[in-house]
Amino acid sequence: MTTRKRLAWIAVDWGSSNLRVWAMSDADEVLAHRGTERGMLGLSSTQYEATLLDVLGDWLPENDPLDVIVCGMAGARQGWREAPYLVVPARLDTLAEGAVVPSVQDPRLQVRLLPGLCQHRDETGKEFDVMRGEETQLAGLVAREPEFSGRVCLPGTHAKWARLVVGELLGFQTFMSGELFRLLAQQSVLSHSLSEDDLADSACREAFVTAVQDVSTEPTRFTQRLFAIRAGDLLDERLPGGEARGACLAARLSGLVIGLELAGALGGLDESEQVCLIGAEALCHRYALALEALGYTSRVIDNERAVLAGLALARSTVKHE
Amino acid sequence: MTTRKRLAWIAVDWGSSNLRVWAMSDADEVLAHRGTERGMLGLSSTQYEATLLDVLGDWLPENDPLDVIVCGMAGARQGWREAPYLVVPARLDTLAEGAVVPSVQDPRLQVRLLPGLCQHRDETGKEFDVMRGEETQLAGLVAREPEFSGRVCLPGTHAKWARLVVGELLGFQTFMSGELFRLLAQQSVLSHSLSEDDLADSACREAFVTAVQDVSTEPTRFTQRLFAIRAGDLLDERLPGGEARGACLAARLSGLVIGLELAGALGGLDESEQVCLIGAEALCHRYALALEALGYTSRVIDNERAVLAGLALARSTVKHE
Repeated sequence: MTTRKRLAWIAVDWGSSNLRVWAMSDADEVLAHRGTERGMLGLSSTQYEATLLDVLGDWLPENDPLDVIVCGMAGARQGWREAPYLVVPARLDTLAEGAVVPSVQDPRLQVRLLPGLCQHRDETGKEFDVMRGEETQLAGLVAREPEFSGRVCLPGTHAKWARLVVGELLGFQTFMSGELFRLLAQQSVLSHSLSEDDLADSACREAFVTAVQDVSTEPTRFTQRLFAIRAGDLLDERLPGGEARGACLAARLSGLVIGLELAGALGGLDESEQVCLIGAEALCHRYALALEALGYTSRVIDNERAVLAGLALARSTVKHE
Repeated sequence: MTTRKRLAWIAVDWGSSNLRVWAMSDADEVLAHRGTERGMLGLSSTQYEATLLDVLGDWLPENDPLDVIVCGMAGARQGWREAPYLVVPARLDTLAEGAVVPSVQDPRLQVRLLPGLCQHRDETGKEFDVMRGEETQLAGLVAREPEFSGRVCLPGTHAKWARLVVGELLGFQTFMSGELFRLLAQQSVLSHSLSEDDLADSACREAFVTAVQDVSTEPTRFTQRLFAIRAGDLLDERLPGGEARGACLAARLSGLVIGLELAGALGGLDESEQVCLIGAEALCHRYALALEALGYTSRVIDNERAVLAGLALARSTVKHE
């Protein structure tokens, strides 16, 4: 840390595969940032403290205890210590009330593990669902815009769609889109036909948009249209050759998977309601394009900004306890 | 071969992963049967003859040439020799007209590789599609029932649905259901929650049927309901414990995947029209149960009987050339 501003607390996003830490000032400015691949899946519960000290020990003051606010899978049952799920509907500005304190040896670490959220099946069509980590990004949205109401999408391996009303999460849905795309692109018969797509290319973009619209019109043909990607590679003479061919087909696969998600997630949403996307820039751009193809507008909030605002909001609640 | 009946020809189903051969009498009775895992994926084009001699060389007479009728991936571009696709609509009783003769050293082998079928995209909603092997099973149905008209389903890794009118295949659709189920069950986050299902168990059967109906009613929620299987494993207190839990969840996954296929494949089909299933007994039973859950009746033709009848029909055409 080369800045003169003083370290006041530490923000931590501890996911399944990655650990990201930020040194924060008392005004919630980022003083320094580090990331590693030491996520929950590679750790036993006794390894978390040592991992944390390993990654950020040199940031810590000599004696003073420091708030370390953690969201994500570190609070799962198979993580550091379980922070039990809060049940929706749930207010997002009081997540810290469900935080748990794991036992630590180093007195400088005042760790709080934030809880995830869960949802039970009910007669209104809600399904069993869980999130860990995304609730903190949603809290970040609420921290920045306390009056926000509307539909929020967090694209990713397990994409989340949340319905917020003035700081309260009423319900949410998880779609396995990212994982499904990866399995199909890398491990199915389609893998022989695909390369990396590029939505800046007009042919790719058109293939993507057409796929979104196709699956939205006829969702029941989803798995048939998957196989047609392979058959099209064998038969479609209008496809470009070379590298561009695999890129177009990958864009079509992406459009089919994201389009099916959107068709399910947008149910009941008026086209005049803007969707708020929270996530990595390129992925959010992809979703924005898909939404546009179906007549919806969107705006994007960067996921790092969202998670830091959510952790800062949680820390402010912890302090006032 | 312990029978006194004389070997007249050899039937071969040469798929991607398996090779199955039958010694046939002139009346098309099975005299002997063998199977190996030496499928197309493990062979280069120069290895087919040796493989065939290895598997059935001891069946061959000293000098007489013998018809060897082959369906499946041996006729693919990456197989023994390419038997180019016939384009639908196509008559199923004249497949042999598209057969090709690969070059062989052994004069006793009179090999014919039957063609697959392909379909081009058109304005009626037909998609690019291909089949290799299933067309011979369909020909087997036509051989047994020349007047057959209706919808035929061949479940499997890439399930085929065909529309037949009096011996002619008008169009078909391939659904990636089997492959999708396997990927999700074995490689996705769901793998932690699943074990083998058993539709003879009433709880499994109910989970399967409910899933078929759920996805048929709301197909756009497909990828969301996939994730809900995992969330249900964490949260649903009504699920049985132990081994039965994973079996019920596997049955639900199977129901979601097959149900989405049926919702797409049954479009425009009146409930009074019976679906003809051709395939392995257990899988056909699963499809029959799913069809019943949606109000349709079905009947089953064993896939070995179908493929042998199709190969016999092709051989009879070859002989009359």
